[in-house]
Amino acid sequence: MASSGGDEKAAAVVQNKKVVLRRYVTGLPTEEDMEIVVDTIVLRVPAGQTAVLVKNLYLSCDPWMRDRMSKHDDGDPTVLAPDFVIGEAMVNFGVGKVIDSTHPELTAGDLVWGMSGWEEYTLVTQTEYLSKINHKELPLSYYTGVLGMPGLTAFSCFFELGKPKKGDFVFVSAASGAVGQVVGQLAKIAGCFVVGSAGSDEKVSLLKDKFGYDDAFNYRSETDLGAALRRCLPDGIDVYFDSVGGATLDAALLHMRHGGRVAVCGMISQYGLEEPYGVRNLYCIIGKTVRVEGFNVNGYFHLYTRFEEEMAGYIKDGKVTVVEDVVEGIESAPASLIGLFSGRNVGKQVVAIAHSGTP
Amino acid sequence: MASSGGDEKAAAVVQNKKVVLRRYVTGLPTEEDMEIVVDTIVLRVPAGQTAVLVKNLYLSCDPWMRDRMSKHDDGDPTVLAPDFVIGEAMVNFGVGKVIDSTHPELTAGDLVWGMSGWEEYTLVTQTEYLSKINHKELPLSYYTGVLGMPGLTAFSCFFELGKPKKGDFVFVSAASGAVGQVVGQLAKIAGCFVVGSAGSDEKVSLLKDKFGYDDAFNYRSETDLGAALRRCLPDGIDVYFDSVGGATLDAALLHMRHGGRVAVCGMISQYGLEEPYGVRNLYCIIGKTVRVEGFNVNGYFHLYTRFEEEMAGYIKDGKVTVVEDVVEGIESAPASLIGLFSGRNVGKQVVAIAHSGTP
Repeated sequence: MASSGGDEKAAAVVQNKKVVLRRYVTGLPTEEDMEIVVDTIVLRVPAGQTAVLVKNLYLSCDPWMRDRMSKHDDGDPTVLAPDFVIGEAMVNFGVGKVIDSTHPELTAGDLVWGMSGWEEYTLVTQTEYLSKINHKELPLSYYTGVLGMPGLTAFSCFFELGKPKKGDFVFVSAASGAVGQVVGQLAKIAGCFVVGSAGSDEKVSLLKDKFGYDDAFNYRSETDLGAALRRCLPDGIDVYFDSVGGATLDAALLHMRHGGRVAVCGMISQYGLEEPYGVRNLYCIIGKTVRVEGFNVNGYFHLYTRFEEEMAGYIKDGKVTVVEDVVEGIESAPASLIGLFSGRNVGKQVVAIAHSGTP
Repeated sequence: MASSGGDEKAAAVVQNKKVVLRRYVTGLPTEEDMEIVVDTIVLRVPAGQTAVLVKNLYLSCDPWMRDRMSKHDDGDPTVLAPDFVIGEAMVNFGVGKVIDSTHPELTAGDLVWGMSGWEEYTLVTQTEYLSKINHKELPLSYYTGVLGMPGLTAFSCFFELGKPKKGDFVFVSAASGAVGQVVGQLAKIAGCFVVGSAGSDEKVSLLKDKFGYDDAFNYRSETDLGAALRRCLPDGIDVYFDSVGGATLDAALLHMRHGGRVAVCGMISQYGLEEPYGVRNLYCIIGKTVRVEGFNVNGYFHLYTRFEEEMAGYIKDGKVTVVEDVVEGIESAPASLIGLFSGRNVGKQVVAIAHSGTP
């Protein structure tokens, strides 16, 4: 049962290191847009409040955080979630341990994943974004990736928007990243022919040797993306799982097969540009009756339970392999986030800030 | 029953005026890309051939013909249909009367619509693209428009791709054209709020006064398409029915509502450009989970019978009004086709080449 925030004995007050946003960002973010500050926190949910006090164990670095680092106008159609607040801890998915709770279904000691702060301890008041971790036998950090938001994104965007059929030709960009590595392996399980693009030869090797991609190319060393696609996918693309947008999307549009689906999960290449890339090949969608569809994971959390069981099974059976890029300490978080935008991470970028749930 | 092509008595040989393609086109087509030539034709299906000899009554001018006037490379992903053949009659939808037939379901005297030549008489060998006209009580020319390919395009693209719901905010570009005028009226029947754009004040008046659009604007006199959309559709767009592409599509993308659908039926603004317009606002489809889908009517002819009955009913009940731009004589066909690309036509562009089916 939930512990009460109203215990008589005094609650501990501890130091709480956090990553706060210093200023709103235009263009690409830098480490200097964030700073580490040290605050204190009472390790108890205030009386009368329904909330969960979480000790954060793993922070997730995800490209979409960039969007929340900017100041948006009211009604801006590009907004994904509310802007971060200057001087306050940034917010994202993470894994933690419950220290105190007045939530009826969460109790001290529970391991949880969901929306928390970029800090050592967070008083989570929007408890609907926290879920109990059901597979503690797997590495907890997986709940920032393959078993968390990126995994659910890969699963629901690929199957619900991409609608793959056995034998389909699938192209995945950012293919070794948190989402892409899962998409490629799900596509193989679904019986597709899968090609990935990534930004280094090391990542291309990972794609072929570790994740089972049928073919892969390094987009940085190709002079002509269209030629690379024609070489790796001579019969065209049935499903393009797009995480990058821009020139890669433009080349893929030219190369889609009749009735193809472009599942657009992100456009990381478009962050920080003064003017977005102009996509010139969109007219191809008429002749080929192609569907291009934007994805937001918020609409798919109802699939989570089914997804978690299926994915945990694949991991245990060795059908899905996970590559993480784990750095230690909350001080590493700003650089790890910035690294995403130049592709410095190899695999899912995680920041481990504590390995134990003891306060 | 079908008449036979093997009758003993001699068949008439008559003059056959036709519009032929003189040269393949790059950029915008001109009248000089076509010429009128006079040939002769035997008014009988050759012995042993399954075909239909049609006297053409109405030719349809449609933007998609532009695509067939160019020489495409093998495997060009933008191709909609085979290139026209230099020196031969151009091909498109039309209305005609059967003069002779060896097709089991068509007989001399039948009125038909479908794929025929831009000439006075055509020996139609691909008879699967001819259909009998079931509503002879309506003007025959309607089978080039509201009851033909453009009508079926409007109906199936709007309902199957646009998936309108009652109360939805619908935006239609090229809104007074052959397809747009039908879409707007179907949207009103479906209980939507409908705004159209067109290229002259005269057309804007038609939209509001004749087709029942709730609001409309002249895109040529607006300095900011986004501002025009915000003014006419302050709550955004649920369904954008796109026939123009380019800057209008870009502005509409910024203004889509969550879960909106962009049904892309054509991109007439993109014909004749050296380089296609670069669409910069595609990233909006992620935050708003918008679907952008290309349409080709070829996949929807199975809906024709249902469509024809429904549409004929709307016309008879006065729920759908038709505006045609009919010119007389096959000599007028090249100029009428060219006029589409500058928006010279008001309503569906038709060329009447004979009002009687007598040879």
